[in-house]
Amino acid sequence: MHRPEPIEKMIESFRRLPGVGPKMAERLSYHIVKAPVEEVQKLLESIRHARELILMCQRCYNLSEQDPCPVCEDRSRDNAALCVVETPQDLLAFANVKGYDGLYFVLGGALSPLDGVGPGDIRVEQLLNRIKKDKITELILATNTNANGETTALYLAENIKPLGIKVTRIGYGLPMGGDIEYADEITLSRALEGRREM
Amino acid sequence: MHRPEPIEKMIESFRRLPGVGPKMAERLSYHIVKAPVEEVQKLLESIRHARELILMCQRCYNLSEQDPCPVCEDRSRDNAALCVVETPQDLLAFANVKGYDGLYFVLGGALSPLDGVGPGDIRVEQLLNRIKKDKITELILATNTNANGETTALYLAENIKPLGIKVTRIGYGLPMGGDIEYADEITLSRALEGRREM
Repeated sequence: MHRPEPIEKMIESFRRLPGVGPKMAERLSYHIVKAPVEEVQKLLESIRHARELILMCQRCYNLSEQDPCPVCEDRSRDNAALCVVETPQDLLAFANVKGYDGLYFVLGGALSPLDGVGPGDIRVEQLLNRIKKDKITELILATNTNANGETTALYLAENIKPLGIKVTRIGYGLPMGGDIEYADEITLSRALEGRREM
Repeated sequence: MHRPEPIEKMIESFRRLPGVGPKMAERLSYHIVKAPVEEVQKLLESIRHARELILMCQRCYNLSEQDPCPVCEDRSRDNAALCVVETPQDLLAFANVKGYDGLYFVLGGALSPLDGVGPGDIRVEQLLNRIKKDKITELILATNTNANGETTALYLAENIKPLGIKVTRIGYGLPMGGDIEYADEITLSRALEGRREM
């Protein structure tokens, strides 16, 4: 006795999505088979709409409804500063923060030697072209502070500093509201290294 | 700065699915925006197909491509024994097991007094009708062994035993391959109660 073929196929499709395991895919599929028709219609339409309407900015590789995206279009921004992030979600997180009025560049991931993700798999070449074309003077590396993000930041710093550009890395340390008691050792040691006079 | 509207809408749709939290919905949505067009097409088609092709068996409320479903159609099965399960997935799990050749009935959930799910919200009435119409002689209650499943089994037993039908509950005890050291007290005490001579 097997699952009906159409449910099996839907489970397979869901399993291809990131973070969806076999149990989750099964749960979603059985829900969708029984859910109200309007709910399923809304889901299908929202997926179709997003695929139709969302564009990738050909300047910074952000996702939005315009190309160039609203961030690149913003004339008040400093064109000589570029903040490199891994994903459009990271760009959004930074764009809501005060204290930086430069532009952004979305790498589309991080180097991951163990998974075979090399410089050709993320937008390293496009970044180098952008730096040269737009006369960037400061590059802020805002990749994640995990192993892949650190590897990527190191790789980019090594390749871009020789071009005579100021390359900085976002600050390491304790997150605000953080509890020293529960912070890991590496974070604490980075927080000490990054201490500032008050 | 906000997320583009179409992505926001897709996140909302995903959040309505069971077990999908805000972070998961965001991850799925950003994946879908960037995924290869064939992958997204396959997902959309598999959902549409399943909705079109999957029927609910009007006899046992199982999901399959036929009504009556293949289990109800199987003439070799004992028509006087009925195993009551919560979901079509549970039915499938039992149908692959040897040692029972009766039929099934899918309740479509379990009673959950705390969530306001009462007998009118699952197929209690349909079950009673089926029992009377099909001259069932043994009813096996195979709802989950959690609080809601137990409540449901108790409720059904109380209402169906007066009809003069043999009502049984699936056995409690240690799962096979289970480690006594890690089993909870209630399971161990049920395993003792359910001991059998060897």
